[in-house]
Amino acid sequence: MDVGFIGLGNMGAGVAGNLLKAGHKVRVWNRSPGPAVETLVRQGAERAAAPAEALAGEVVFSMLSQDDAIEEVFLASGLLDAARAGLVHVNLATVSVAFAQRMEAEHVRRGLGYVAAPVLGRPDAAAKGELNTLCAGAPQAVGKVTPLLEAFSAKVWPFGDEAHRANVAKLASNFALASMIETLGEAGALAQAYGVAPAQLYELMTNTAFAAPAYKIYAPLIASGKFSPPGFKLPLGMKDVRLALAAGEAANTPLPLASVLRDGFIAAVAAGDGDKDWAALAATAFRRAGQKLGD
Amino acid sequence: MDVGFIGLGNMGAGVAGNLLKAGHKVRVWNRSPGPAVETLVRQGAERAAAPAEALAGEVVFSMLSQDDAIEEVFLASGLLDAARAGLVHVNLATVSVAFAQRMEAEHVRRGLGYVAAPVLGRPDAAAKGELNTLCAGAPQAVGKVTPLLEAFSAKVWPFGDEAHRANVAKLASNFALASMIETLGEAGALAQAYGVAPAQLYELMTNTAFAAPAYKIYAPLIASGKFSPPGFKLPLGMKDVRLALAAGEAANTPLPLASVLRDGFIAAVAAGDGDKDWAALAATAFRRAGQKLGD
Amino acid sequence: MDVGFIGLGNMGAGVAGNLLKAGHKVRVWNRSPGPAVETLVRQGAERAAAPAEALAGEVVFSMLSQDDAIEEVFLASGLLDAARAGLVHVNLATVSVAFAQRMEAEHVRRGLGYVAAPVLGRPDAAAKGELNTLCAGAPQAVGKVTPLLEAFSAKVWPFGDEAHRANVAKLASNFALASMIETLGEAGALAQAYGVAPAQLYELMTNTAFAAPAYKIYAPLIASGKFSPPGFKLPLGMKDVRLALAAGEAANTPLPLASVLRDGFIAAVAAGDGDKDWAALAATAFRRAGQKLGD
Amino acid sequence: MDVGFIGLGNMGAGVAGNLLKAGHKVRVWNRSPGPAVETLVRQGAERAAAPAEALAGEVVFSMLSQDDAIEEVFLASGLLDAARAGLVHVNLATVSVAFAQRMEAEHVRRGLGYVAAPVLGRPDAAAKGELNTLCAGAPQAVGKVTPLLEAFSAKVWPFGDEAHRANVAKLASNFALASMIETLGEAGALAQAYGVAPAQLYELMTNTAFAAPAYKIYAPLIASGKFSPPGFKLPLGMKDVRLALAAGEAANTPLPLASVLRDGFIAAVAAGDGDKDWAALAATAFRRAGQKLGD
Repeated sequence: MDVGFIGLGNMGAGVAGNLLKAGHKVRVWNRSPGPAVETLVRQGAERAAAPAEALAGEVVFSMLSQDDAIEEVFLASGLLDAARAGLVHVNLATVSVAFAQRMEAEHVRRGLGYVAAPVLGRPDAAAKGELNTLCAGAPQAVGKVTPLLEAFSAKVWPFGDEAHRANVAKLASNFALASMIETLGEAGALAQAYGVAPAQLYELMTNTAFAAPAYKIYAPLIASGKFSPPGFKLPLGMKDVRLALAAGEAANTPLPLASVLRDGFIAAVAAGDGDKDWAALAATAFRRAGQKLGD
Repeated sequence: MDVGFIGLGNMGAGVAGNLLKAGHKVRVWNRSPGPAVETLVRQGAERAAAPAEALAGEVVFSMLSQDDAIEEVFLASGLLDAARAGLVHVNLATVSVAFAQRMEAEHVRRGLGYVAAPVLGRPDAAAKGELNTLCAGAPQAVGKVTPLLEAFSAKVWPFGDEAHRANVAKLASNFALASMIETLGEAGALAQAYGVAPAQLYELMTNTAFAAPAYKIYAPLIASGKFSPPGFKLPLGMKDVRLALAAGEAANTPLPLASVLRDGFIAAVAAGDGDKDWAALAATAFRRAGQKLGD
Repeated sequence: MDVGFIGLGNMGAGVAGNLLKAGHKVRVWNRSPGPAVETLVRQGAERAAAPAEALAGEVVFSMLSQDDAIEEVFLASGLLDAARAGLVHVNLATVSVAFAQRMEAEHVRRGLGYVAAPVLGRPDAAAKGELNTLCAGAPQAVGKVTPLLEAFSAKVWPFGDEAHRANVAKLASNFALASMIETLGEAGALAQAYGVAPAQLYELMTNTAFAAPAYKIYAPLIASGKFSPPGFKLPLGMKDVRLALAAGEAANTPLPLASVLRDGFIAAVAAGDGDKDWAALAATAFRRAGQKLGD
Repeated sequence: MDVGFIGLGNMGAGVAGNLLKAGHKVRVWNRSPGPAVETLVRQGAERAAAPAEALAGEVVFSMLSQDDAIEEVFLASGLLDAARAGLVHVNLATVSVAFAQRMEAEHVRRGLGYVAAPVLGRPDAAAKGELNTLCAGAPQAVGKVTPLLEAFSAKVWPFGDEAHRANVAKLASNFALASMIETLGEAGALAQAYGVAPAQLYELMTNTAFAAPAYKIYAPLIASGKFSPPGFKLPLGMKDVRLALAAGEAANTPLPLASVLRDGFIAAVAAGDGDKDWAALAATAFRRAGQKLGD
């Protein structure tokens, strides 16, 4: 298929690379030039001189990390106004639910397709084509892009006809990750207060009831107390929890546990951990107790 | 070895049965007579006429569910005062940290051994000898009873020289389970508020980052909205969170997430779910949002 | 002085009336015509045909309830661009801190004065000229408008050189009011659970340690359980707490009590109290306990 | 009347002194001898050689600060068993609701009267006879002791026939004080984060909506940042909040705001403020934000 790709950071580049490998024609555009674009071009991608060229095919993917950036590139610029009818836009980013609803409406009223396809997985999974990809939107549009999504996914998870539902599910999943980090933090601080090393507690947990990938990745990271360099920056995790809270508020759904997470993230930033991995949220549980993680 | 066993509920009976199978002499005593004792006697256990007889061997196990019951049987009755020096008491129950510390001291000053060995697993795991058994106490005592613990455990997890540390770890682990239930509740309520079935969200979660036994058991249970008959009663889960909070307070460790869980459990009881499985905690997240789980 | 006034709801009309009484020339403009404008004109106000006319004097007051409305009237419309140098804008509204900072900057770069003067008090206090008016901004601008503020205030409370500080103080004060409501709710629910009428508890409190105007107004209102018609609508109170939380987040200040309030407000809306007085927040404390306020 | 008095700390001595002044015969007993007893004897009190002598009159007051101490003096010692029928015990202490219920029952089954009369006010108010005294119990007993209570009270506040209700009201009132401290802490931290001195914010609050004795005492104390020497020690305030939470749990009433207070108190102790005035709770709000109160 003839597809475009806007936003070639670590995640986007991996996804685009897999689309190429699957035999698709991929027109790539990134705001700032860089090695990722060069690499993709060497692999056969076509360099788009302007965002509009990335919209010349049947489908355009975007992976831009901020709602503002997406708004600027697609809406404020007039890009969508110029898109040809029938084009399907696949938004891979984790956006707010309100923004997803708005994007959906903006595409519909221009006769364009809109599919929300936020992904679970880190850059290495993107590179290997092993992401878990959530997906929602009008059935025809989803049907058209599903083979493309499969090109870079371990599995595609459908969430129905309304695009923003995939975003709700993504935020709910990220909220659960943050909740796990806080849980490990509090459980570890309680253990350490009685002379039990957090690592020892986590060893038990991750080999019994909590033997899951997320726990196996994060528990040793927390026990190590080393949160730099970050895999996923704390302010980004805080943003996802904030978006979950905002989505909850808009739908009259209180999320008291998410409120605790939000307060913890803010305390983490106040304590100077704003540049670290979001697992540093766990350190606040120790700090509140006058303990130091790793003592 | 010649061992005694006090407290033959579902869990205790399973453990005692495996001790018998491993070839040990087991003297059993239960406050109220019942089929469990009869079955064990048929399997070769010796019926103790009084608790003191259960203390006649080298080791005595107890599995009594309340701190008060343990206090009554072992301390108030004078039973420990009469125990012969060198006897090791293995307490399998999930007790408060303060009580564990007191029990430890009461045994030490009478020249008795005390090993805390709280277990992870449900009655069926006890019957199959597949419990995960935490274990802490003086090294000599622990060394003596470890082969006995192995007779009914998938694995024995050592937590050091001070008995109460095993109880801290057990409470921390149960706190993490309650936290998972609340997380699934809030994530599910958020999803449902936007038309995503909780089951669909959980399907994603339990097959990706959260593919762990605890999530795989509890997520479908929560999605079903059916919390009767209970596997583990809500007030017992509430008690464990209360014990974690009390242990935190005694060691100057705030646990704000545990506070949210405690408030949620109380609201669950107020809403009439006090006789249900503790997974009904998740239903409060839906109720707060004016939703009904399963709508 | 020659002043303009934009936004003549209940509060604005009262303030403008007192400016007239104090002998000032007042040019009034309201988006929708209505009796308030007519009344003011009869009292001597000059009707502005367009917002620009309200900016023709030395000072312009505005009392618009939403950040969006202020942005639309003053910024998006180009109104400020056309204002003559030296004009001082006094914003009486409770706006977000971020918006106050932005407004301050927008005025400064156009050579205009900006004073934040959010008020404490209800419409009747505005009509009587007995508001408590917070005030912050560049000293010269503040100096110029203080006599005007005194025309409708019991007292003017200065908060320094940066306009947004008055907004921070206003939000902090409103947060404290919401906190009082939640406190009365929880204290009342605890009392009622033991057969003590909330009114009886409140009678004690408001005549001893808590003998303050806010408690004396809200405690009987809560005890009555009648939250309609609203004096201050619940979603507006929820908004102020949200703005306090946002201001806290932007300045790395966790506000866990405010998080509890926010969750409570959302639950109140979910329970159908979105059109009631914000004191209905107290009812959620009873609802969580399976009680009914007034039972 | 012929009355006894057990427990002559700062508060008890003040109360007993006023009973003497009112012309009653007062038999005083304190566990440890001290100047308070000597002073009272000089003022005409009779020194009881043993607690039993303090129970020889018609009414006995007690002001012992811990449930355990009351249990030891009145129950474990057999003192109540020896009391003559018709004696009325007035318990002035702030005890747990569960303990109050138990004391009530213990007295009733021995044919004794029991009146709960916890007081609001500090030692100087006790000395001046200006306490606010809550009061509940069987009508006849209450009728008998009310004139005695009036001897040291600005006002006596009746809370009905069941003694423990007065304790519920006292705990609810103390919870509200702790809530006020946390509110002032969070509001002050928010203000300070934007360069507004907490004292300036409090000045506004305590002269407008929150012009109440409690705010006027605590706001300047918090703004000063000086919490030593303590007027009311932090662990005692933490205990009252814990008792409110326990009373809530026993009656299925969640108190999420009280949970936040409890977590804050624990953090305060962890930060080394355990010997300070309970107003130091407010300092945790600043600490969470990486601020220092008074900066």
